[in-house]
Amino acid sequence: MPPSTPLLDKVASPADTRGFNASELKQLADELRAEMIDVVSQTGGHFGAGLGVVELTVALHHVYQTPDDILIWDVGHQAYPHKILTGRRDRIRTLRQGGGLSGFTKRSESEYDPFGAAHAATSISAALGFCAARDAHGKDNRVVAVIGDGSMSAGMAYEAMNNACETTGQLTVILNDNDMSIAPPVGGMSAYMARLVSGGGYQSLRHLGKSMARVLPKALQEAARKAEEYARGMVTGGTFFEEMGFYYVGPIDGHDMDALVPILKNAREITDRPVLVHVVTQKGKGYAPAESADDKLHAVVKFDVVTGQQAKSAPVAPQYTKVFAQELIKHAERDPKIIAINAAMPSGTGLDLFGKRFPERTFDVGIAEQHAVTFAAGLAADGMKPFCAIYSTFLQRGYDQVVHDVAIQRLPVRFAMDRAGLVGADGPTHAGSFDIGFMGALPGMILMAPSDEAELAHAVATAVAIDDRPSAFRYPRGEGVGVAIPDFAAPLEIGKGRIVREGTTVAILSLGTRLAESLKAADLLGARGFSTTVADARFAKPLDIELLLRLAREHEALITVEEGSMGGFGAFVLQALAEHGALDRGLKVRTLVLPDIFQDHDKPEIMYAQAGLDAEGIVRGALNAMGVDNVSAAGAGRRA
Amino acid sequence: MPPSTPLLDKVASPADTRGFNASELKQLADELRAEMIDVVSQTGGHFGAGLGVVELTVALHHVYQTPDDILIWDVGHQAYPHKILTGRRDRIRTLRQGGGLSGFTKRSESEYDPFGAAHAATSISAALGFCAARDAHGKDNRVVAVIGDGSMSAGMAYEAMNNACETTGQLTVILNDNDMSIAPPVGGMSAYMARLVSGGGYQSLRHLGKSMARVLPKALQEAARKAEEYARGMVTGGTFFEEMGFYYVGPIDGHDMDALVPILKNAREITDRPVLVHVVTQKGKGYAPAESADDKLHAVVKFDVVTGQQAKSAPVAPQYTKVFAQELIKHAERDPKIIAINAAMPSGTGLDLFGKRFPERTFDVGIAEQHAVTFAAGLAADGMKPFCAIYSTFLQRGYDQVVHDVAIQRLPVRFAMDRAGLVGADGPTHAGSFDIGFMGALPGMILMAPSDEAELAHAVATAVAIDDRPSAFRYPRGEGVGVAIPDFAAPLEIGKGRIVREGTTVAILSLGTRLAESLKAADLLGARGFSTTVADARFAKPLDIELLLRLAREHEALITVEEGSMGGFGAFVLQALAEHGALDRGLKVRTLVLPDIFQDHDKPEIMYAQAGLDAEGIVRGALNAMGVDNVSAAGAGRRA
Repeated sequence: MPPSTPLLDKVASPADTRGFNASELKQLADELRAEMIDVVSQTGGHFGAGLGVVELTVALHHVYQTPDDILIWDVGHQAYPHKILTGRRDRIRTLRQGGGLSGFTKRSESEYDPFGAAHAATSISAALGFCAARDAHGKDNRVVAVIGDGSMSAGMAYEAMNNACETTGQLTVILNDNDMSIAPPVGGMSAYMARLVSGGGYQSLRHLGKSMARVLPKALQEAARKAEEYARGMVTGGTFFEEMGFYYVGPIDGHDMDALVPILKNAREITDRPVLVHVVTQKGKGYAPAESADDKLHAVVKFDVVTGQQAKSAPVAPQYTKVFAQELIKHAERDPKIIAINAAMPSGTGLDLFGKRFPERTFDVGIAEQHAVTFAAGLAADGMKPFCAIYSTFLQRGYDQVVHDVAIQRLPVRFAMDRAGLVGADGPTHAGSFDIGFMGALPGMILMAPSDEAELAHAVATAVAIDDRPSAFRYPRGEGVGVAIPDFAAPLEIGKGRIVREGTTVAILSLGTRLAESLKAADLLGARGFSTTVADARFAKPLDIELLLRLAREHEALITVEEGSMGGFGAFVLQALAEHGALDRGLKVRTLVLPDIFQDHDKPEIMYAQAGLDAEGIVRGALNAMGVDNVSAAGAGRRA
Repeated sequence: MPPSTPLLDKVASPADTRGFNASELKQLADELRAEMIDVVSQTGGHFGAGLGVVELTVALHHVYQTPDDILIWDVGHQAYPHKILTGRRDRIRTLRQGGGLSGFTKRSESEYDPFGAAHAATSISAALGFCAARDAHGKDNRVVAVIGDGSMSAGMAYEAMNNACETTGQLTVILNDNDMSIAPPVGGMSAYMARLVSGGGYQSLRHLGKSMARVLPKALQEAARKAEEYARGMVTGGTFFEEMGFYYVGPIDGHDMDALVPILKNAREITDRPVLVHVVTQKGKGYAPAESADDKLHAVVKFDVVTGQQAKSAPVAPQYTKVFAQELIKHAERDPKIIAINAAMPSGTGLDLFGKRFPERTFDVGIAEQHAVTFAAGLAADGMKPFCAIYSTFLQRGYDQVVHDVAIQRLPVRFAMDRAGLVGADGPTHAGSFDIGFMGALPGMILMAPSDEAELAHAVATAVAIDDRPSAFRYPRGEGVGVAIPDFAAPLEIGKGRIVREGTTVAILSLGTRLAESLKAADLLGARGFSTTVADARFAKPLDIELLLRLAREHEALITVEEGSMGGFGAFVLQALAEHGALDRGLKVRTLVLPDIFQDHDKPEIMYAQAGLDAEGIVRGALNAMGVDNVSAAGAGRRA
């Protein structure tokens, strides 16, 4: 039963809240929280972060004149309450579903989302762009960025803060400090913010002032008080932020509407200098099961509102992430040089398991992919075996470091690229579409894409063994196919693929986990009279030239299949075939890749079909190569 | 005449300096500076930065037990004195020449270069990798990173500092603060460091202490002194660095050996907490023409030691960089929405010219490519026309931002990718080899590569006109070919190439400035009886499919030529030809790309020959496609 939300029901847009008094704003926040709990219990999605910013969301839209004032949410996974308040309540139960609302902010969704997000720490840079545009236009709209403390470990946030005071006069940055991103916070900056909040520095100086005051003549107490104030300004006044040129305000309780609204009103009026408002919130606030969970229910599937029990389905096969972690642990038991590095994704990469077993050999560097990669390079340069586990899409953050610090120096850093390919509900910002191209182009790189969880085990073993140059292996989000994993997987022969099924007319050369669909496609093609070979390339680099030439020579058509963009595996195959003259006399070759669009979020199977990378799509590609009509091919697929 | 260097002559390796007294160390520094001036006067190269760290180099090698202690120079362009001291003096006059020493630190050159560099701000991350390896090995060697204040604007440096105290106990970071990188410093952090040096904060608190002392009873003066010390520790004590967990020492005079040596000796003994030594140096120190130059002679060609006069040769044609800047200024005169952004490369990108004309519309964000890209995205989201001018190799630093903030949101940011392709003496770290692949793979991107300076003018005009999605154009280091540039270049038709010369047998499809060599190759091929078409693709994305299919249909062989890696233009062409069935019946197609190695620095013409991307290489590729013997092809080239 949906919650009763009489006040929220009257709010069609933020303008409707501008006349609310303090008591109405509090009631609105309470109703918004209840609505959000009800929504996410039905849709699943990001949860704890949104619960934490309910009051902040209401206060911001009440004080700032959105959408004329520009409000940018960092990451955007905390923006469900914002979506409910900004005209999307009627579609909020379509969150993360095909054709429905995105789980992040998105420009195409609403004028209240002036800048979309999903990766961390982009908000201040984007906000400064809006500020510079505003200043150039001669307008006076305000610009606000809301950024979490977790994002503050990212160099990008620092780069932006470093540029703020030289770029513009008016900018409000809300530092939403919940002492928690997805995982516990990392690093010196986090410790610093915690000290600001605990007021440790302030306390000791106040004590100093008091103790001085006790012994001071009455007339001097005023001087002591001033000295204390001066010092306090530098301690709890947020020295770091002040040094960057910000006017620092806080820390303030982000659930106390009576504090938030007046402070934001003041902040909005400061137009000669960027302001940082340090707001302390509680992730998961207001929903007991979230408040008490270790991860504050960062992300959930559908759940029962009363019990908080999530409707998790039983897995069919182990997740690739977990297989990677378990295999790495096996090797690390025997090889003390193996080190595991992740960037604020201990559970997402499975390295929380590794960290429990080998805490001294595990480094979570925070949201800091650039550092993660070069840190790994330094480890490799001194003889260690670093495994850098970063989602494919986030490795884009460390690309220059992969090129400059790892590849050019030919250092044996191992990249475990999780979430390669399509990712379903998280949508295009999280898809790992480009890594085959951007990693495979690098001289000396060894790039693997295992086709199932057993092959992943072999890829991990291979990466352990490759000690004279960089290597990488990519694997998708989700579960394996259910094959048995060997107790101790042996390393693969570098640059050698394998024939999985022998045929005579069509050859399908698959890279990665589309192999299962390739085999289904071979069945469908066989049923239509096209005897089909299926090969598993295993390596995107170096290529198995012998295999390629054999497939080209012995078949009429060659179809490459990969879950990646143009300019990747299929492209490498074509360039190699061309170089070897294998196209000179004709080959019906097609490279099936992700479409040249950013695919919207949807169920994975729908996205694969859209991409033409399911069995039917592969059949279509093969029939197109063989000169057979596509429509009947689709029909063949449907009949299968 | 080489300078007299009696003490330096006795130093075969840093170990030989360990017994030197203060006076000998000073003499060694003086001789080292004289030697460096003499060397660079003959070789050219980076100059001002090396002059500024002569004393620091001597002091570091005297105090730290290199090479067992790990010494990492950030960027590495200041490491010429380091190379002279570490056994490379006999080869120092081969700097930046083919087969000679690199202009940066390089692992393969010396055990004293434990980690190579050339891009900025990698040193602390790499050093932490060495620290973690050291700790894992149970060794006690020390690790030192030397980083300039310019690099401190890079987010990567911040990410590393944020991780330092959690990663290890012993690390020495030398902050080499010369208030100058290549260009004047940028941002809040720079202003902060300047305040540390000027001691402004310390002064005012000392004054506060003094004024309090005047009115305090004698017995209380001690308390006031303590209060002052406490406050001082937080102000001149380098609050930012202390908050990050570093023990801060400084600022100290980096040319005063009597200060440097004892402080470094103390720093070396601190093993329970990372130490930051803030050293103030003068870029260009000790050579009057460098000290008085605006850029402190950051980089020079050969020069006369007495006068400082550089042996600059007269240009044959304008540099691409300058053509870009001049064209952008032309458009900006008429279009107030054009904004120019660079990342610490105002003169390198030509945007110093733009900045003089339009200071309000020019942003130098410092070494902060991530911010530069997303800042541009914010500007574009509010209707401006940002041009983000970043060297191809440095754009790798902002790749995720290009994907996530620009391409996914389809924002019309214009990327001017300078130094695309090979760069000669700066070597592999500065080559722009991968941008065609990593940019061309992005849905919605328009990617141009003009073939000469007039075409660059058209590309700029095209980018101005593209207002509904991102675009990029790449151009090489160096001079154009000398063609006339139109007064007002018109925008190009999107995705359309052009036929430059008509032939019948072989088609050469060139992308970018290899067009001139392609035309020479066509001459050579014609002389051998192969009538050759030459086309200028203009666009790597979208491809001119009609042109591709026509070239494929009307010729026996198709050769693509580009100054970029595999997985780029040639790959896209093959994928498109395959998709259209143009390979089904046979096409002698070859994609000529940069070789799959990181080419060492050398003269550009030698590097092009090595890459097979000069006229002879193109002829070889065509003859290989035509099934003609390669040796005679090379001979044909030589005869031409």
